[in-house]
Formats: sequence, structure tokens, C-alpha cells
Amino acid sequence: MNTRNAFYAQSGGVTAVINASACGVIQTARRHANRIGTVFAGRNGIIGALTEDLIDTSQESAEAIAGLRSTPSGAFGSCRFKLKSLDANRREYERLIEVFKAHDIAWFFYNGGGDSADTCYKVSQLSASMDYPLQAIHVPKTVDNDLPITDCCPGFGSVAKYVAVSALEASFDVRSMARTSTKVFVLEVMGRHAGWIAAAGGLIEDHGIPVVILFPEIEFDQARFIARVDALVREHGYCTVVVSEGCHHPDGTFLAEQGTRDAFGHAQLGGAAPVVANMVKDALGYKFHWAVADYLQRAARHIASKTDVQQAYELGQKAVELALDGQNAVMPTVERISDSPYAYRIGTAALADVANVEKFMPRDFITEDGFGITARCKRYLKPLIQGEDHPTYVDGLPVYVTLRNVPVPKKLGPFDLK
Amino acid sequence: MNTRNAFYAQSGGVTAVINASACGVIQTARRHANRIGTVFAGRNGIIGALTEDLIDTSQESAEAIAGLRSTPSGAFGSCRFKLKSLDANRREYERLIEVFKAHDIAWFFYNGGGDSADTCYKVSQLSASMDYPLQAIHVPKTVDNDLPITDCCPGFGSVAKYVAVSALEASFDVRSMARTSTKVFVLEVMGRHAGWIAAAGGLIEDHGIPVVILFPEIEFDQARFIARVDALVREHGYCTVVVSEGCHHPDGTFLAEQGTRDAFGHAQLGGAAPVVANMVKDALGYKFHWAVADYLQRAARHIASKTDVQQAYELGQKAVELALDGQNAVMPTVERISDSPYAYRIGTAALADVANVEKFMPRDFITEDGFGITARCKRYLKPLIQGEDHPTYVDGLPVYVTLRNVPVPKKLGPFDLK
Repeated sequence: MNTRNAFYAQSGGVTAVINASACGVIQTARRHANRIGTVFAGRNGIIGALTEDLIDTSQESAEAIAGLRSTPSGAFGSCRFKLKSLDANRREYERLIEVFKAHDIAWFFYNGGGDSADTCYKVSQLSASMDYPLQAIHVPKTVDNDLPITDCCPGFGSVAKYVAVSALEASFDVRSMARTSTKVFVLEVMGRHAGWIAAAGGLIEDHGIPVVILFPEIEFDQARFIARVDALVREHGYCTVVVSEGCHHPDGTFLAEQGTRDAFGHAQLGGAAPVVANMVKDALGYKFHWAVADYLQRAARHIASKTDVQQAYELGQKAVELALDGQNAVMPTVERISDSPYAYRIGTAALADVANVEKFMPRDFITEDGFGITARCKRYLKPLIQGEDHPTYVDGLPVYVTLRNVPVPKKLGPFDLK
Repeated sequence: MNTRNAFYAQSGGVTAVINASACGVIQTARRHANRIGTVFAGRNGIIGALTEDLIDTSQESAEAIAGLRSTPSGAFGSCRFKLKSLDANRREYERLIEVFKAHDIAWFFYNGGGDSADTCYKVSQLSASMDYPLQAIHVPKTVDNDLPITDCCPGFGSVAKYVAVSALEASFDVRSMARTSTKVFVLEVMGRHAGWIAAAGGLIEDHGIPVVILFPEIEFDQARFIARVDALVREHGYCTVVVSEGCHHPDGTFLAEQGTRDAFGHAQLGGAAPVVANMVKDALGYKFHWAVADYLQRAARHIASKTDVQQAYELGQKAVELALDGQNAVMPTVERISDSPYAYRIGTAALADVANVEKFMPRDFITEDGFGITARCKRYLKPLIQGEDHPTYVDGLPVYVTLRNVPVPKKLGPFDLK
């Protein structure tokens, strides 16, 4: 059987485990060398395809590819480049097909979140109409955990573990200091419009920590928030607040957008954490500390969830198997079988049902007062942070691989990204 | 031989390993049960002694005490309460002696940084003049690594490891995103007036990461900083900035004090990271992300340095041995024997030489341009982050102990802290 080539690219915000999916894709493709010739990776996501900036992953050793499983970030570069709609910019899609034809690419694996699923879906549809059948498979990835159908998204479990561990440790710290110093600790976490990551902070409640969660799904009510913090500090001597970056006022403005200005009148680009911390200080006078985890949370491979790493790998593996099975316009998913003991299988969703749909926290995952998570939410979250997958350390630092990323010789003229 | 009791307390900002020192003190005292009766812990540091709020550590199981070795924070509570000078408030010192007499306390172990060493020294001197000989031993602790004489301070190695690992991971992340998104990542770290923690960020340079360090020891020069960031981004496509909270302008004002005001005219309590990030944006237009690690860094027992944990334990152990050996007004220290292979022994310093002395980064640990660390600094830092000491995990979260902290019945009247 003649071999044909595959294209793989990483899109959107990277995670601690997106490279584990890459590892799953490439290792599985290598095991099917009778059908898949080379996996070409797009340098910087879809931009690599548009500009014919392809990476020849066959130049990487088996050890380097295996090392991807424990390396955070996107080994081939990612991008925040969104393809326009077919009607608005057909030339981009035509260019993709042109590049795929030039390099005999028959399989398109796109590793990303909701926007990327939409791109992948459009590619899958266009290829048919252009008489170049290409099987497009989406590999799910997003720390925000907001993709539909799949029970969870690779990247999320590790961020959830990072947030729960970090919040637990910092809460022990503030508990130690509360008698004469800090009484309120505020941790800001990611998640965009979905509160999944913030919810993970609620897991420390079972360790005796008084914690208040501020979700994007619940409109912020300053008076009720202050009252809740005060009640917890009076009862426990301290409390921890986990605030989602997407938390907002009833009028839709984010907490971080307080209309603050610097000395030159520039909008202050602070986060939600200092805003919330200052609210507490102004209203209650409690000394506070705040942290903004930002990239640290989504890059924290050192504290990755073993479950998450494993699922990220399996979804990459399954994507290749689906492609070899002749499927198109699908995304492998995690289907939960049971909470405890945790069991799941890898399923499949139609991309048409995935693209541009966001999954938010169900209301019954959030306590009635809006500041905590329910037992049902804990049952959902706990399996996802299970297990440690410590990287190897040399000289005190984890061993993360940087690939050679050897470029594939170009066959076409340049393309203007506009 | 009649037994007498010991007092132990934790002071100042807590760390990932101060409880490992507590473990060393208590386990060693238990091994000398023929001489040491009970270790009473002060609840919330010296406040526990002043208010006779003592904890009976003999009520804790051997397992719980062993668990302290892998539990961050201060298990008995800490405090930001500084004893006044002997002249200004002799009554506080007299009260301490009164409490120690009431509970037959012959040994005083104080676990803290520079201010606490001063307190410990004063207690050691006063007891003699009050005809109640008490042996006062200081157990060093500070993430800032700014105590003199000792080669390093327990708590520092673990923060250094956290900062190096986190900066490495986040740098991989920004490297992935730089083509179309974030080009500069700014991480703010602790350290007060000393740049030791920020210096740890420089260790990632050996992993190919372009990094700029902003030290408190080097006056901030905005134009040179911007030029350096721009040069690195032009060469590598991205760069990481590690800024110390103590970094300041030539006039002494901290970077974090930008005179920023919120909509109500309140001083903006942001950190240095957003200030630096906005400078980069304003001058160069590069997209940025920033993180403020705050308590997360000093509480991060999950990524503690094994060397640090071991030294914290040994210094607690040695403190008890020094006490039983009849010494007073001393502090056990780490004496480095060699960098590579790393070797050290536990030595002793006179508290008179330790109290109120801060140790800053030597100029030859900082590169000539002021933005990096030298080979000599790397040789100093590398052994301190060596080794992992992973805690045990259950259900995805580390097992950290919370002690019972059973109070000792009071024998004296109340004391007004003022």
C-alpha cells in the first residue's frame, strides 16, 4: 500500500499536556508506517500550513518524541490566528488544500479548542468540494474545559490539580499568618467565560479550608461577597478566595476592568485578584495577599495530573486510529463510565456538534449561594486530578525536550497572511 | 537526671520547609527524653509565649510529627510581632521569663529570620541577668536567603526551585505563543531587599531561555531595560522577565509604587509585574502576560528542594544538640564544603553576629549589565535546588498534616500585648 502523509498542528493557548497529544499522534502514526509516511507539523499552528512552513517530525528521534509526553507548551509553536469564514476568505482554505496537495497530505489533525474545532470542521467540508478528500480530525485541548460532548478536555485536569494544590498550600500559609498578618488570600485563575478552573479551588474545602469561589457563571455581588468573606474570617480566622478571570459584574464588565488608571491616565491592566483583594481591604480592613497564576498554571507540567496526561495521549492516538478507519470531521472524546472508581472510554463526536459550542458549569455544580462547589461537582472533578506523572529531573530542573524542528523544503510560492 | 521542658516557636513569613525544622527539633527532643520533658510550641510565635498560649506537642503522634517534614506553612502559627527593644519594653522580656519559669522551660528555640534572630539574642542575654539561665538557640529560616554567615537559609532552596521550574515552564509556553501572541512574560517573585530569589530565575538561561532579571541590588534603569528586552525579543522571538518585588528606581521608590490610582483615587496596590509588563507594552508594543507568584512560591512544598528539606531538618536537629551541649545565643548554620559534588556540614554562628545583618547578592553574582547571573552565582545556586522530595498524594492532592495543637493549661494571669 502506498503511504501518504499527515499534517498535525497545535492551536490556541498551549497546555501542560498538548505535547502528550502530539506524542500520541506521532507515535501512533509511526506504528502505522505502512500507511502513514511522514507526519508534517505546522510551525505555529495553521499558519505553518498557510505559509508552507512545515516541520519534518521524522527527523526527531524516538526519544525526543517520547519526551513530548512530559514536556509542557506547544513543541511546534501555536498561534492565535483564526481562519475567517469560507465566504469571507476562501483563498485561505484553497491555499491549505494547495499545500496539502503539494506535500501529499491525506490526514489533517488539528489540536485545539472550540475555535480550532470550527477551523477543522471547515477544512473537512471544503476538501470534499475541492475534489481533494482530506480526513480532518480534531484533537481536543483546552484548559478552560469548555468543549461540549467530551466529559473533559485535555489540559484541564492538570490545571485543576495545579490550582487545587496551590490553593491548598497557600491556604496553609495564610492560616499560619492570620493571627497578626494576612487574613485573606486571593488567587486569580484562568478559564475565560467558564468556571471550571476556579471550581477546582473548591476541592480544598474537604481539607478544612474556608474558601470562596467567584465564578464567571455567577454575576458578582460585592455586598454578598464581602459578607461571605467576613463570616468565614470571623469563624476560621482567615479565608481563601479563588477568582476566575472571567468573573464579572451584572452589567458584563469584568472585575479586572475597574476603570483604574495609572498616573498617565492609561487603563490599568491589573488582574481581578488585586481588585478583589482591595475590595476586602476597603470593606473589612483585613490584610491580604494576592497571586495571579497566569501561564504558570497552564504550563505546570511538574504537577500534571496523570489522568490528564494519559487522556491527552490516548486522544492523540485515537485521532490517528479514526483517520486510518476512514473517518472525517470527528473529534475523539472522553466518555465517563463511572466516577468512583473512575472509568472512562474514548468515544467520538461529530465536529459539526462541537464547533463553536461552549460548555459552562452546570448550575447544580455550584452551591446555592454561588460561592462554592457542590458534592456533584466534586465527584466530577476528583478523578480528573488523580495521579502524579512527575517528569524526570536533572540538576534540580525537569527535563523538557526542545525538538530540532527541521523545516520541510518548500514547493510553493509565498502566501500573504494579511 | 531530671527533665526540663523546651519552647519552640515559628516567626515571620512561613515557608515550605519551616515545619521540617520543627520536625527536626521535636524528633530530636523526643530522642533525648532523659533530659527534655516536653516541647511546648508557642501558638503564633512569640505571642504564644507572651500570652502563655502554649501547645503541648507531646499530644501529637509520632506520625503527625513525622508528617511535618512534608507539610508547608507554620504548623503552630507564626506572627509578624516584633519585640521592642529591652529598654523600650522590658516588661515583655520579663513576661517571657515568667512564662518560662512557670512551665519549667530551660531551652528556647526560635525559628525565623533576621528580626527573630535579634529577639532570640535579646532573650538569651536577658535570662542571664534575671537569674533564670535559659539557653536560646535560633533556627534559621527565610526564603529571602538574607541571613549572614550561613551559606544559605532553609526555605530559600525550595523557593528557588519553584521559581526556576515555573519560569522554565512559562518560558516554554510563551515561546510557543510568540509568533502571533505573547512575546514577553513577566514573573514577579519575593525576596524583599535581596535578589536571591529573582536570581534563581537566571538558572533557566542554561536551558536556552532568554531571560532578564531585575534585582533589588541594581537600580532600575527603564531605558536600558527596554533595550535589553527588545534585543532579546528580536533575537529569540520572545523573552522572560523575572522581577523582584524589591526592585526600585534610583530614588528608592519601588517599581510597584507607580503612583497609580483607581477610579476613586485610591493608591493602586498592584505588583511590580504588571508595571513592568505595561512598560514593555508602551515602549515596544509587544503583547505580554504577567504572573505574581506571591504565597504560592513560598508554600510550594509539592516542588520543594530535597536539599532544602534535608537542611531544614538538620538545622532543627542541630539546634537541640547545641542546647543539650550547653550552648546559648547561637544559630546552627550551613557551611558549604564544595559546589560540585555538593557537600556541606552544619556549623554554628554566634547570634550577636547574625542579628539584624542582611546579606545581599554579591556584585560578582550579577552580570556586568545588571540583568543576569554569573557562572559563579549559578555554581552557588544549583546545589540548593537539587533533588525532589515529593509529598505523598491521596485523591490527587498532597497529604499535609494539621496538628491537634492541644493547649497547655495556663498557670499565670493574662498579659496585655498592647
